[in-house]
Amino acid sequence: MAAASRVKRLRRDWDVVVYERTQWVSFALCGIPYHVSCMVKRLSDLIHYPLEEFTRRRGIDVRIETEVVDVGDGYVVARRRDGREERLEYDVLVLATGARPVVPRGLAEAVDQERVFVVSHLGDAERIRRRLEAGAEKAVVVGGGFLGLEMAEAIRSWGARVTIVEKLGGLLPTVLDEEFSEHLTRIVVGVEGVEVVTGKGVSSIEGGGVVLEDGSSIEADIVVLAVGRRPETSLAEKLGLRLGRSGAVAVDERMRTSRENVYAVGDAAEARSIVTGEPVWCPFAQVANKMGYVAGTVIAGGDARLRGVACTSATKVFGVTVAKTGLSLAEAKRLGIDAEAVDVEAGTKARYIPGGSWIKLRVVYEASTGRLLGAQALSGDESGFWRVNVVAALLEKKADVWDLFETDLGYTPLLSPVWDPLVVAARLALRRLGGRR
Amino acid sequence: MAAASRVKRLRRDWDVVVYERTQWVSFALCGIPYHVSCMVKRLSDLIHYPLEEFTRRRGIDVRIETEVVDVGDGYVVARRRDGREERLEYDVLVLATGARPVVPRGLAEAVDQERVFVVSHLGDAERIRRRLEAGAEKAVVVGGGFLGLEMAEAIRSWGARVTIVEKLGGLLPTVLDEEFSEHLTRIVVGVEGVEVVTGKGVSSIEGGGVVLEDGSSIEADIVVLAVGRRPETSLAEKLGLRLGRSGAVAVDERMRTSRENVYAVGDAAEARSIVTGEPVWCPFAQVANKMGYVAGTVIAGGDARLRGVACTSATKVFGVTVAKTGLSLAEAKRLGIDAEAVDVEAGTKARYIPGGSWIKLRVVYEASTGRLLGAQALSGDESGFWRVNVVAALLEKKADVWDLFETDLGYTPLLSPVWDPLVVAARLALRRLGGRR
Repeated sequence: MAAASRVKRLRRDWDVVVYERTQWVSFALCGIPYHVSCMVKRLSDLIHYPLEEFTRRRGIDVRIETEVVDVGDGYVVARRRDGREERLEYDVLVLATGARPVVPRGLAEAVDQERVFVVSHLGDAERIRRRLEAGAEKAVVVGGGFLGLEMAEAIRSWGARVTIVEKLGGLLPTVLDEEFSEHLTRIVVGVEGVEVVTGKGVSSIEGGGVVLEDGSSIEADIVVLAVGRRPETSLAEKLGLRLGRSGAVAVDERMRTSRENVYAVGDAAEARSIVTGEPVWCPFAQVANKMGYVAGTVIAGGDARLRGVACTSATKVFGVTVAKTGLSLAEAKRLGIDAEAVDVEAGTKARYIPGGSWIKLRVVYEASTGRLLGAQALSGDESGFWRVNVVAALLEKKADVWDLFETDLGYTPLLSPVWDPLVVAARLALRRLGGRR
Repeated sequence: MAAASRVKRLRRDWDVVVYERTQWVSFALCGIPYHVSCMVKRLSDLIHYPLEEFTRRRGIDVRIETEVVDVGDGYVVARRRDGREERLEYDVLVLATGARPVVPRGLAEAVDQERVFVVSHLGDAERIRRRLEAGAEKAVVVGGGFLGLEMAEAIRSWGARVTIVEKLGGLLPTVLDEEFSEHLTRIVVGVEGVEVVTGKGVSSIEGGGVVLEDGSSIEADIVVLAVGRRPETSLAEKLGLRLGRSGAVAVDERMRTSRENVYAVGDAAEARSIVTGEPVWCPFAQVANKMGYVAGTVIAGGDARLRGVACTSATKVFGVTVAKTGLSLAEAKRLGIDAEAVDVEAGTKARYIPGGSWIKLRVVYEASTGRLLGAQALSGDESGFWRVNVVAALLEKKADVWDLFETDLGYTPLLSPVWDPLVVAARLALRRLGGRR
């Protein structure tokens, strides 16, 4: 919708048609856990704009409950809910097909959407909430990523005891470095009514619960699978578009695919890492929206580029804010970068102000140059999110730890310590860089 | 203390002597209002580190209650509390003499520190609190800057009715653009028990209160003068150091003054604006500390520079967070820069999340190039502070509005809207830049 809206804003007289498989457009997928928990009461609250905003006000021809089932050179074929098909010719095509949940091998048949759920679109939010309303005492969430954590908190808010099963060693294992993952795991383990099982995958889901790889089982009235997502590229493949190593559609900075007049945006497309310059898959809403904006601008004849993304991600669960931007130390090393990290544990306000919170912060940089590579934070207030965002801004400009030291963060006792944890981290890094620079 | 500590860390065997006029070192001047309000109960809580941290642990020879009264080529003369003087020779001198409160013409005699106060050091915090403990029903705070606002809130917390008198047109008039100053003024005017009188100076302070320039008067049991500060440069002048246009000591990026082996740091010294490249006076704690760190490093033979500061400033008063970095639109125009601004009023969380707050944000940029010049924000939560800090990071790297658009701020519904107000501001600016770029 971001791309369509942008085209229509710049080219009022162009025909813009949007096909949407579900009944919802402009929906907040990230809000699903908050609908499940009843923090967001109505499902309709998760719709950013009503359909009329796009159709009447913006002049976009939105065709909901209509799935594009075929695509070729200059045309698409779409199937309406009643089964009838329509063919539409295009001058320019934008693929914004998103991502779909991964269902682990052997578990696909267990997904019945009555007791065993995936989280794919708004309808799932409604069904999971209905299930919880009907009563559930024991829940298993498979997957300790962002969605798994958020769903676990949402289900726990109904009073059900929740077990999070994560195959790898800790929570958010593909986001955070091990030490941070472990720290988060310890916090979540400490939440009443929540258990965390790590290092074990799920081998099957049966009547009474979940069976783990080691043969042990966990009873469950409700199971939510949240083990990850994959870009939805079936249409892209039909068009023969080049896919990247991540499996998402390869695009340039202008969201152009390998085929002329075909663009890809959102969770279906890759972006370029501002840190490495290499393609990455960052299926995050804020990136998706910017991709849409850029594609729409370019299609309409304007100049826009998304030169890079830092893959900043965040959540707030069980009273902890988690945020990360750029690379973790482990990711940097895996890429062969000579990376180092400095850790700071600090208060988030002036020491003498009551009610300050805590932050555990890591800043990752290149050992030879001091160039910033990333940051991650856990914090008891929201400041960890923002401190990571400050690093995201510096990553955008390829800054180094000296820039971080110099960045003139404001200070007032109620809002931060006079030596901000970010500046302390920079100082530690500078001390280590010492003679090397 | 930052400079002294740094030298001692790098040069353990050097003799480092610190003279301090008061009995306190490493004190949190910015914390004074919070001691007055009793949020910080003990005055000693405002001491970052006890004296022994510096003397015993760091090996610094700190001589408190000893004022340097003369300085010459290679020596200082200091007077102890008992009146005895000592002379000390130095190889390197660091002036960290800070700033002193401005007392408006004609009001100096009224300052009795029993009923009429300035806020200069920790002792003032104690005296003002004693006065409030003794009972005060009506207070006048002269000056609507950061300190005036914070003192007004602190005094109001005792139940006294407070009138803030600001000579210029609104609160924080030299920090914020007029529209933002007016918005803040409206909020503060709405606080029960607080009045704001703008556009009128104080002509005298008499027994029963304050007399304004227009002849009207305001009753007061207690008057706090908070009309600004000036760099304390009497020693610098004795040494014949070059002062900048601001009146503070001119220094280079390494904190070196016009005289060899003499450094100046903190509120007594100028810094270089990262935005304009010109010297500016930014008497803020976080800048002062960095200056000390840089001077100490350089003195000890290391390499360090403070290439520029954004003069980021902030406060949280009466439930509003105020923050600013770089230039306001008015400041930019006064400097002859072809500047423009975009304003965004938005929520600070995903729209559907209950309990989100509000932000009013301005981003200032150069019209011809889109280069960022500054930002200011008022917000109901602390996110305005952090959004301004994100811009401070971008200013550090001389970023433009396209960089701001691209900065990959994390998104999660509980912490921010998916189109962050900063990104919305960037979009608005890009739209305006349109053909020009």
